[in-house]
Amino acid sequence: MFTPMQESITFPQGFTAAGVKAGVKKSGKEDVAVIYSTVQAQTAAVFTTNLMAAAPVKVSQNVLASGTAQAIVVNSGCANACTGEQGIKDAKQMADVAASLLHISAEDVFVASTGVIGVVMPMEKITQGIGEAVKNLAVSGGELAVKAIMTTDTFTKSLAYEFPLGGKTVRIAGIAKGAGMIQPNLATMLSFITTDAAVAAPVLQQALTAAVKTSFNMVTVDGDTSTNDMVAVLANGLAGNSLIDSTTHADFAIFQEALTSLCTYLAKQVARDGEGATKFLELMVQHAPSFAAGKQVAMAIAKSPLVKTAFFGQDPNWGRILCAVGYAGIPLDPAKISLKIGEVKIVEKGLGTHYDEAKLHQIMAETDIQVVVDLAAGSETVTVWSCDFSYEYVKINGEYHT
Amino acid sequence: MFTPMQESITFPQGFTAAGVKAGVKKSGKEDVAVIYSTVQAQTAAVFTTNLMAAAPVKVSQNVLASGTAQAIVVNSGCANACTGEQGIKDAKQMADVAASLLHISAEDVFVASTGVIGVVMPMEKITQGIGEAVKNLAVSGGELAVKAIMTTDTFTKSLAYEFPLGGKTVRIAGIAKGAGMIQPNLATMLSFITTDAAVAAPVLQQALTAAVKTSFNMVTVDGDTSTNDMVAVLANGLAGNSLIDSTTHADFAIFQEALTSLCTYLAKQVARDGEGATKFLELMVQHAPSFAAGKQVAMAIAKSPLVKTAFFGQDPNWGRILCAVGYAGIPLDPAKISLKIGEVKIVEKGLGTHYDEAKLHQIMAETDIQVVVDLAAGSETVTVWSCDFSYEYVKINGEYHT
Repeated sequence: MFTPMQESITFPQGFTAAGVKAGVKKSGKEDVAVIYSTVQAQTAAVFTTNLMAAAPVKVSQNVLASGTAQAIVVNSGCANACTGEQGIKDAKQMADVAASLLHISAEDVFVASTGVIGVVMPMEKITQGIGEAVKNLAVSGGELAVKAIMTTDTFTKSLAYEFPLGGKTVRIAGIAKGAGMIQPNLATMLSFITTDAAVAAPVLQQALTAAVKTSFNMVTVDGDTSTNDMVAVLANGLAGNSLIDSTTHADFAIFQEALTSLCTYLAKQVARDGEGATKFLELMVQHAPSFAAGKQVAMAIAKSPLVKTAFFGQDPNWGRILCAVGYAGIPLDPAKISLKIGEVKIVEKGLGTHYDEAKLHQIMAETDIQVVVDLAAGSETVTVWSCDFSYEYVKINGEYHT
Repeated sequence: MFTPMQESITFPQGFTAAGVKAGVKKSGKEDVAVIYSTVQAQTAAVFTTNLMAAAPVKVSQNVLASGTAQAIVVNSGCANACTGEQGIKDAKQMADVAASLLHISAEDVFVASTGVIGVVMPMEKITQGIGEAVKNLAVSGGELAVKAIMTTDTFTKSLAYEFPLGGKTVRIAGIAKGAGMIQPNLATMLSFITTDAAVAAPVLQQALTAAVKTSFNMVTVDGDTSTNDMVAVLANGLAGNSLIDSTTHADFAIFQEALTSLCTYLAKQVARDGEGATKFLELMVQHAPSFAAGKQVAMAIAKSPLVKTAFFGQDPNWGRILCAVGYAGIPLDPAKISLKIGEVKIVEKGLGTHYDEAKLHQIMAETDIQVVVDLAAGSETVTVWSCDFSYEYVKINGEYHT
């Protein structure tokens, strides 16, 4: 119901952005971005659950506590993770520098980083970069901003919607990076979302948490949860719609749907751009006893190196899929489980069928492949997105030297 | 304290074995083995926890229930998993055929299979193979038996000890296969152990469970738990030692130590022969709050594709190791964690050190590498064995077509 628009993060009213080359990335490409709202925005964010959470994550968690934000400062090339007290100091300085130049409070500035773990931030380059980015802030700056958050991503990930809400026209836009690394030290997923909708922070947080649950949290490339993962949304209210101040507000459902749809699109793009990926895999588990159980089964399949290499080899190796279902840790009756790849039913109630081999090999040769596992154990349907495991994955992560 | 001997599974008194070419494997190599004790033996076994447990696993679980066994029938080339009622019938027939030829009870015959999932057993070939194997049973048959259980293993895994026990000389021998697949449908680990020690079945089971906990259960190649895993031990008592009928028996501790030592050797051999492996990794977690917590942390590191590809690339990428520690799911203080690769301390209390780079690169170039993570959170030390992730792994599991 939402029409995807090829507009940037600055599409919603009142947002500008910039991306500059600060010399942090060895490649010399854009590596510092600033996203700015001309008015203070309500905000929501979710962060990595990794205990080794990077310094910028910790600083941004404090920003979230206030419920408002007005800018996001991001760098690629250095993760500022495992950097101790110095790292916290550097992340705070990034917020301070941006806040001072933008004449806003440092408590309204999110900080995010992605890159090598364990390396202290090159703060001279970073602060110069922030200065230049603030100078360059413009509605046209969205394209460079999304480039500046990329690492080994092979394409930019960006989407926008425009839709009526409470009699007004509302815009929402998001960018993401992920499944690549400027240096192969972590799998980092970052996403930033802007909207001119008026949504109160606590409601925005509920909506974001719900959206992330079925989008970004359903993606796996290699099973490695990064130290720097972060999704943040800024809602500046400039669309003038009636403030959505509770989940029972008449306009909440439509806003939630837009946000979830946007996050789902970006999450799928992250899986599609998985390091070395040649296949985009959608793993749907039907009739699961619960969302959590279905996700556990889907993730076991999605993360299995044996399944991932089979898809790379275009081999419909259903034994590996059932094997992963069997060790997922959910009590199930093997004799009830069915399996489809694309439209071809391969397993019916635990036993292999006499399927159309030519048809199945044709499906396995495609880039986008859907796997449907029916557990016949409940009523929940759960979808996870992933990719295959290729020589290129080993190359990207094995040949690169720190 | 136990001196490894290059003797086969028939080294303990009263055991014979055979391995024959029955035509199940496409390669035409040995694929049916029989291991036989001239007298009924006390037995213990552990099986896969995969819900999709193969038919031979289910049949062997019934054998274990009686506490005695006298023979083991194994085939490679077909896993007899996800084969429904027909599979159970076929596995039972394997036991029946062997029992009838050996003039023993079918309830004393373990059955094990490894190979492709979802394919019905070629029973004509199998029964002919069992017939031939029984005819060939000999003390000299151990070498062919271990070959007949191999799939993509690149070397045979076998070990024996001889040691004094209660005034007698006792022998114990074991073979294992694993980390390879005749067809890339499952990661199957099988191990069979013979001993002429006199040990009562319940005590033997306790000893085996304890031995497996710190040996086979501490190995991961790709994190995929097979449908056919099985470790079985036959103790025929022909050494004439005083029957070990309780864990408080004076000779129990030494028998346990021999069994654990044997299992640990075989388990490490399985990791060393991991598909496509170029490195053997020993991951030691020190000062863990508990065995389970330490294992969870060690397994998170051992299973991380990012860590495994880094070792393949000989890159001391410590950020990836700490990242895996951080998402292992154990509450820990990142600021207390230290890390060594070989003798080089790389992380001290959460922060990177200025280590000797030349020395570390030399360690990373070796085949056997030890990683030591100190959690400073308790008193448990836990060791897991694994291998790296190479192009060859993707080739073995991606290029082979079912």
